[in-house]
Amino acid sequence: MNRQVTLAARPEGEPAESDFALVESEVPEPGAGEVLVRAHYLSVDPYQRGRMSEARSYAAPVQLGEVMTAQAVGEVVQSADPRFSPGDTVVGQLGWQEYAVARGSTLRKFDSQPETAALHVLGTTGFTAYFGLFDVGKPLPGETVVVSAAAGAVGQIVGQLAKIAGCRAVGIAGGPEKCAELKERFGFDAAVDYKADGFSAALKEACPDGVDVYFDNVGGGVSAAVVGRLNVGGRIAVCGQISMYNDPTGAPPMPGGFGFLIVFRARAEGFLVTDYLPRFPEAERRLSRWLADGALRYEETITEGIENAPKAFIGLFRGANRGKALVRV
Amino acid sequence: MNRQVTLAARPEGEPAESDFALVESEVPEPGAGEVLVRAHYLSVDPYQRGRMSEARSYAAPVQLGEVMTAQAVGEVVQSADPRFSPGDTVVGQLGWQEYAVARGSTLRKFDSQPETAALHVLGTTGFTAYFGLFDVGKPLPGETVVVSAAAGAVGQIVGQLAKIAGCRAVGIAGGPEKCAELKERFGFDAAVDYKADGFSAALKEACPDGVDVYFDNVGGGVSAAVVGRLNVGGRIAVCGQISMYNDPTGAPPMPGGFGFLIVFRARAEGFLVTDYLPRFPEAERRLSRWLADGALRYEETITEGIENAPKAFIGLFRGANRGKALVRV
Repeated sequence: MNRQVTLAARPEGEPAESDFALVESEVPEPGAGEVLVRAHYLSVDPYQRGRMSEARSYAAPVQLGEVMTAQAVGEVVQSADPRFSPGDTVVGQLGWQEYAVARGSTLRKFDSQPETAALHVLGTTGFTAYFGLFDVGKPLPGETVVVSAAAGAVGQIVGQLAKIAGCRAVGIAGGPEKCAELKERFGFDAAVDYKADGFSAALKEACPDGVDVYFDNVGGGVSAAVVGRLNVGGRIAVCGQISMYNDPTGAPPMPGGFGFLIVFRARAEGFLVTDYLPRFPEAERRLSRWLADGALRYEETITEGIENAPKAFIGLFRGANRGKALVRV
Repeated sequence: MNRQVTLAARPEGEPAESDFALVESEVPEPGAGEVLVRAHYLSVDPYQRGRMSEARSYAAPVQLGEVMTAQAVGEVVQSADPRFSPGDTVVGQLGWQEYAVARGSTLRKFDSQPETAALHVLGTTGFTAYFGLFDVGKPLPGETVVVSAAAGAVGQIVGQLAKIAGCRAVGIAGGPEKCAELKERFGFDAAVDYKADGFSAALKEACPDGVDVYFDNVGGGVSAAVVGRLNVGGRIAVCGQISMYNDPTGAPPMPGGFGFLIVFRARAEGFLVTDYLPRFPEAERRLSRWLADGALRYEETITEGIENAPKAFIGLFRGANRGKALVRV
């Protein structure tokens, strides 16, 4: 049998475990051009919150009763696509389920170790950091790069890539432990605790030369503080707005609206990693090299059991994870 | 004697006439390299609101008791700069006063007719439209360009430049008269009244192919409606946020913060026309040609008497002007 986590209800505000259902179905058979994959690890990511709402954003919502959309890495069990053989490790949009059938053309073969890296540093979170920082943020050596949700899967990579680019890397994270780890383990020049009193003053102190690139994962009040410290010509790579996903109108308005963009002649630009699909091999090649030579590290927060995927997902909105949040099937 | 309008008090919210004072002083003498100019027309512009507040934005504030900063056009009365002779028409940052002494290097000689054009279509408002639309907005033929405050000095030019660029030009303005004029006199394809019921629906109807470029002069709720209709790859040229100048936190928050930039992979970029100073001759040359061949029209709202400059300025925030608001000295 195939255990699956489906969307049972559309959440109002923060998702609850009751918005999901654990169901069983037959293990499917692959048709021509298709591959049956047994999942080893499932991904939980903030973007999945958008798929739970009825409104279409940049992709269609998950329907009630459908398997939750997610990336997963696993092994090929049966293949009707000549490019894949049983035992191959593959990654794809396989959903929160133990077994998935997918068209071979949507799968990426993954030969590196560990296989979990396919879901983070050598997968879409790593690619998100890579394209968002380099293509959208365009940092120059000596500039200051600030990243929010810095202890998260994307944020940890962004700060390290900023160091590789010769920049000052400043992370924003919740709590002293996360902040200490960013500096000690991941080489950030400074880390600022947004939950602590005096956040704004600490941010100012951490950015003595202002902010040239802001890689924004959170939105809301944290972002309002950062954009006030932009330098002329500053760039904001808008990757996520997790603080607002459960309550889009809950944040206070940005004082003066877009006025700060005029004051600082700044650019705010949103991006989706999937738009960079043709360049994924470039990102994977470079990230692999930095990983191999020790310039890049990663961290995983692994939850055991597919039945706990909803819990792991909900934890993202509470800052429960460090680095990439994964579910071991 | 020289009549001057000075800043008497820092306004809270909307400026009042009591925030200004009409004073008299001696007509100044030009020193070496300086020029004495008698003003014919003074400019009133939304950016002056920012100079009235204590906080520095991109330029230093006007101090209490100082002459209000403003562009003006007038004639040279006395010159200690060999490049200028009495009778020359010049434009510069001369302030709200009848006579001003300025360094010759800060003045631009103006030979076209009428001289008021130096303060609008062939001056910074025209240049703002030109660089904001072409350099920041980067419209392509067939795209839809939306401009807010379309009946204002910058907005009227933006829409006409969009037509010259082969785009669909959609203006947003307050009231049916302004909207009718945009279509009938200035060639906009559509005009939407933001004060009317059903604004959002009318905007949607006016932009059947979505919005590729949004030239934003206003911010607030009008901008929130426009950005919801962006196409993938849309661009926002952030020129002004007049709806928020008197009450920076008064507008409702943008739902989802910067989330729309992600959904539409859009770019919002602020600019200041003064950054384009080296390219002003390029803009003046092209705008002059379009003006001469009838592709470009302008409108002026002229207030008589320097003593009425504050009233003309306050009118900007109430939509009292059409086209460029000027004060005849």
